[in-house]
Amino acid sequence: MSRSTRSMRLAVIPGDGIGPEVVAQGLRVLTAVLPSDVKLETREYDLGARRWHATGETLPDAELASLKEHDAILLGAVGDPSVPSGVLERGLLLKLRFAFDHYVNLRPSRLFPGTAGPLAGTPRIDFVVVREGTEGPYTGNGGSLRTGTPAEVATEVSVNTAYGVERVVRDAYARAQARPRKRLTLVHKDNVLVHAGRLWKDTFDRVGREFPAVTTDYLHVDAATIFMVTRPERFDVIVTDNLFGDILTDLAAAVTGGIGLAASGNINPDGSFPSMFEPVHGSAPDIAGTGTADPTATVLSVALLLRHLGYEAEAVRVETAVAEDLAARDGAAPRTTEETGAALVARVTA
Amino acid sequence: MSRSTRSMRLAVIPGDGIGPEVVAQGLRVLTAVLPSDVKLETREYDLGARRWHATGETLPDAELASLKEHDAILLGAVGDPSVPSGVLERGLLLKLRFAFDHYVNLRPSRLFPGTAGPLAGTPRIDFVVVREGTEGPYTGNGGSLRTGTPAEVATEVSVNTAYGVERVVRDAYARAQARPRKRLTLVHKDNVLVHAGRLWKDTFDRVGREFPAVTTDYLHVDAATIFMVTRPERFDVIVTDNLFGDILTDLAAAVTGGIGLAASGNINPDGSFPSMFEPVHGSAPDIAGTGTADPTATVLSVALLLRHLGYEAEAVRVETAVAEDLAARDGAAPRTTEETGAALVARVTA
Ligand SMILES: CC(C)[C@H](C(=O)O)[C@@H](O)C(=O)O
Ligand SMILES: CC(C)[C@H](C(=O)O)[C@@H](O)C(=O)O
Repeated sequence: MSRSTRSMRLAVIPGDGIGPEVVAQGLRVLTAVLPSDVKLETREYDLGARRWHATGETLPDAELASLKEHDAILLGAVGDPSVPSGVLERGLLLKLRFAFDHYVNLRPSRLFPGTAGPLAGTPRIDFVVVREGTEGPYTGNGGSLRTGTPAEVATEVSVNTAYGVERVVRDAYARAQARPRKRLTLVHKDNVLVHAGRLWKDTFDRVGREFPAVTTDYLHVDAATIFMVTRPERFDVIVTDNLFGDILTDLAAAVTGGIGLAASGNINPDGSFPSMFEPVHGSAPDIAGTGTADPTATVLSVALLLRHLGYEAEAVRVETAVAEDLAARDGAAPRTTEETGAALVARVTA
Repeated sequence: MSRSTRSMRLAVIPGDGIGPEVVAQGLRVLTAVLPSDVKLETREYDLGARRWHATGETLPDAELASLKEHDAILLGAVGDPSVPSGVLERGLLLKLRFAFDHYVNLRPSRLFPGTAGPLAGTPRIDFVVVREGTEGPYTGNGGSLRTGTPAEVATEVSVNTAYGVERVVRDAYARAQARPRKRLTLVHKDNVLVHAGRLWKDTFDRVGREFPAVTTDYLHVDAATIFMVTRPERFDVIVTDNLFGDILTDLAAAVTGGIGLAASGNINPDGSFPSMFEPVHGSAPDIAGTGTADPTATVLSVALLLRHLGYEAEAVRVETAVAEDLAARDGAAPRTTEETGAALVARVTA
């Protein structure tokens, strides 16, 4: 493809609460940083709580098919207390991850200079969690018997396949190998979840033989949370299952500047489907409309999106802008969503 | 029973690594604090890695039956890297919890004055996690198909019953009601684990109507880990399932003075079986034999044991001794296991 015909077809799901506000700033930064010969085409999708209330729909097939015709998806946040728990999560967010086979849920954690984390002292923190995105206890397997009676039994089944575990483990090894420290930690609970644990551990060891330069270790998930608080600097790349990854990455956000900075990519590395990028935070209905939401996590998700689509230099520019901005912000008065967006636009175009 | 005939029949499982060292100090403190008319009878059980290597046994039926004939069990720690992961956990620790129906796994967390936690600032932290102990993903349900082949499927089944959830939720409400703040938080992941989540949440709401004085809220487990780091003082009593409780309590230990202080009780509230008390930490083979392990978590577990058997005043004396000792230790040179034991004995007998 010649430079003059490059294009980026981006599906945008602003969502609920602060979603539209942070997405607007993410798009501003994206527009500002993209090379001028790249034609950015965006298409907005009205999905989330508002849509569900209006039509009862979470993600109709036609929209799923239409979303598929894009290079990537940028999502703000969906959800509202007025929607029953699970409806949008399973009907929209997880449906997208499963339908588009987002088996690598990528969540980098960095303590940027200038951001005071909650931990005393400021160790250098820079790791990435590769969370499996299509298996584990997230498959919806399970059910209940004698529901609502004193004799009820409710089950949740964690499903783990050699196919699913191997591909995400291999992806994590490749990422670890490309990083300076080349260190990969498997997090599981193989002393209790013995079947899934054995599959993860055997796969981890076997695939590791293809990556002799990578140093590995294993931690039980409970021990990993301790290290996350006491020695987060020990981590480089972590690979783990869907549920442990969910828990660990929120914790990681908490120890590195907060959920306002945590970016994520739901990635289909094969490129068979569009990957989706979203801040880890939710729709924060309590501050929606106040113009005070921090768009940084969305902007950092845009950097992941750029990197995934091959715009490495642009991704680095966005990340550098954020790092500089956070250092400059340090101690300054709180800014509006729009002011932070403007500051980041100024830096990426400087 | 007249005062002069009171007795305490205690089964002791010193275990591996630092287990015997910390248990010795726990027993010293117990002996020192017990009223003089209480006859303490202890019987030691040789269980753990050493035993497994020698005989291949983890917990023979005869020993299980013999353990049952006690008022309580004190366990140090079991495990060693030389034993395959899961063997002692499932063959001994979990076997005891299941055989003796330890459905309340009680784990208090307190930031004692004088202990510098890893969090900047020192909020007042004083909460207790009531972790379900006999269900969830710990039942051993699950298996694998086409094991070891590229077509393998491995499952883990989380089993939740109305019977099991209701009794632990009711116990947690009663504990919350007895505390000054009377606040109970349910931690689950009901937006993804919808079957188990609904059972937990419905039960929580229904049982709550019996405890109108208790204020309640609900947190997803990922959000709970964030609060555990950013606002641990918000928690009073937490009730949660077996796996989430495992993860949350290690994290709680990390934010409150470390795993060296974390005590736990595996409680059968009905009194049909002996309850078991153990530090949350493991056998720490790296420091075993050096005489440097901190016995405080074991001593605090002895306090839980005393309270469970009705020795409330003695439990408070032990906890006060620990609090004073930690405050006095602050900044002082590290002590040996034996010195800490002696210091605590001195305080409880003062
Ligand atoms: C909203 C929820 C389904 C989701 C998850 O559990 O994966 C969220 O917590 C996340 O981490 O992206
Ligand atoms: C050793 C292991 C089986 C155990 C558990 O997972 O319950 C431990 O982590 C604990 O918290 O007591």
